[in-house]
Amino acid sequence: MRQWKRLQDAAGDEDKLLFSIVDLHAITMPQDAEILRYRRREMLAALIAIGLDPEKSTLFYQSSVMQHSELMWILSCTASMGYLSRMTQYKSKLLAENKQDNLENAIASRLKLGLFSYPVLQAADILVHRATHVPVGDDQRQHLEFARECVTNFNYTYNQELFVPPETITSSSPRIMSLRDPYQKMSKSSRNEKSRILITSSPQEITQRIMSTVTDNLNEVTYEPEERPAVANLLELVAQCSPEPTTAADVADSLMGATLGDLKVMCARAVTTELSGISELYSYVIDRWGGKYIDDIEAEGAEVARRNAEETMRLVRDAVGLASLR
Amino acid sequence: MRQWKRLQDAAGDEDKLLFSIVDLHAITMPQDAEILRYRRREMLAALIAIGLDPEKSTLFYQSSVMQHSELMWILSCTASMGYLSRMTQYKSKLLAENKQDNLENAIASRLKLGLFSYPVLQAADILVHRATHVPVGDDQRQHLEFARECVTNFNYTYNQELFVPPETITSSSPRIMSLRDPYQKMSKSSRNEKSRILITSSPQEITQRIMSTVTDNLNEVTYEPEERPAVANLLELVAQCSPEPTTAADVADSLMGATLGDLKVMCARAVTTELSGISELYSYVIDRWGGKYIDDIEAEGAEVARRNAEETMRLVRDAVGLASLR
Repeated sequence: MRQWKRLQDAAGDEDKLLFSIVDLHAITMPQDAEILRYRRREMLAALIAIGLDPEKSTLFYQSSVMQHSELMWILSCTASMGYLSRMTQYKSKLLAENKQDNLENAIASRLKLGLFSYPVLQAADILVHRATHVPVGDDQRQHLEFARECVTNFNYTYNQELFVPPETITSSSPRIMSLRDPYQKMSKSSRNEKSRILITSSPQEITQRIMSTVTDNLNEVTYEPEERPAVANLLELVAQCSPEPTTAADVADSLMGATLGDLKVMCARAVTTELSGISELYSYVIDRWGGKYIDDIEAEGAEVARRNAEETMRLVRDAVGLASLR
Repeated sequence: MRQWKRLQDAAGDEDKLLFSIVDLHAITMPQDAEILRYRRREMLAALIAIGLDPEKSTLFYQSSVMQHSELMWILSCTASMGYLSRMTQYKSKLLAENKQDNLENAIASRLKLGLFSYPVLQAADILVHRATHVPVGDDQRQHLEFARECVTNFNYTYNQELFVPPETITSSSPRIMSLRDPYQKMSKSSRNEKSRILITSSPQEITQRIMSTVTDNLNEVTYEPEERPAVANLLELVAQCSPEPTTAADVADSLMGATLGDLKVMCARAVTTELSGISELYSYVIDRWGGKYIDDIEAEGAEVARRNAEETMRLVRDAVGLASLR
């Protein structure tokens, strides 16, 4: 998220920044409606808390802009089933969700169209705003590649130069790993809550989770990402939350002779300090005006996003031959 | 189409009638944008020419109502890939389009997502208007069955009774077969123009096409659908175009001793007579006010259809947990 704020701060007057909370993607897995509504507002509050400014960045819910689904259908008509079936993420999500290890069986009996076709919606999310640069994590590279494929297919089929392939901006910040398993990425969607720190986590929760991190039995601090991934992860957290720029290796050097307990205390303090301002702003924002503050920001963002998407869709409908009178 | 007019004429004050020209479905196969725009207007003019009255029936282009695509995505998230892959129409279309006979190869190399997933859009077309009855041809039964499956999946997943399974109204009128091959349905999409009669066909074209119908060599008129399908098809055309209700068998009886030439002449006269009023109204409507008449009717229909669809989507978004502030 820091990268998003950096992008915002570096943006010029000509740059447009759009941040979409992708609730239409959330429903590829069963969701409770009430919780989804709540999580979506949380997410928007979090974006504001980390420093995205609604005056500079357009913040909106994906489901507020019907043009995303509209473009998805149009892209579907030139998107290859073969390419989609070679993509990997739906397979791992399907297996995780159904606790099955036989992929063929799971696909035949359980796979829903949405889980298979959502890369096309992701492509539409980008292309409907004719985004030129998309900041993504490493695990999303495959999807950006597919979005470029969609550009090629559409432009070729309709003999247009309407879409321009979006470029990937990858984050330079290292991955933070799960506190329970240093081989898994720290993730909002993991089943084990103790594996992660959220910006909504209280200082007590943060401290407890870091203190009970699963590490190794060697009671000293060294930076050896390959041999000691859990320790390296704690060092990385300290480095990332340090007020002065530093590296995990430098943090390790400064802790020569300390115990893993010392490292955990230091880490818990660094993370709670780093998140305290963000947590406070978050709490302020999420409850402001009984929630209406968030809703108003979203309503304004959605209006801007709809106008932006509609500009693209006018060109698309014209190129494809669809109805343009509204 | 007669059935649609009959439905309209039998409708009570409480009944809503919606007729959508499904241009979003047209693009599952490559289309020229200009031709698609033209064909869509032709189709709307044809609906009016056969007697659908814009005061009683809502006539609109599918692509004018974004809610169709929006609902499609939502239904996709509970629609089974296994069920979709067992449906047959995409396979035959794919083979026809690519002139291949190896289905596996064609699917792997050529199949587009849209051609595979369009039954979900068809289900959305119906469900977004919460249609209770859908008049369809025999070849669409499978798709109505799938729409009912979508109802079950959605209602079960979201614990709702929001959608009601739509009922099929099947036409009692017999199929009219191709004039070149009595084992194929007469179809707008056949490659051979001479195989069909359109309401835009001129009397000369109609007469030529009927006179050159491929029949058998037995130069007498009998109604034997199994043994003499092409002759039975001409008799059916005569019966269907007769001002008094009659059957193909009765027409055959009245032509005892006549030749196939006589039958063709009789058939050409019956069809041109039946279509003349329709053709004239069609020509009047399609060019009226330089096309603006059609466009205005569509704009009004689209407005009604959007309101109708939006009513459903408010309930759907609420049930699913999507953004409802607009």
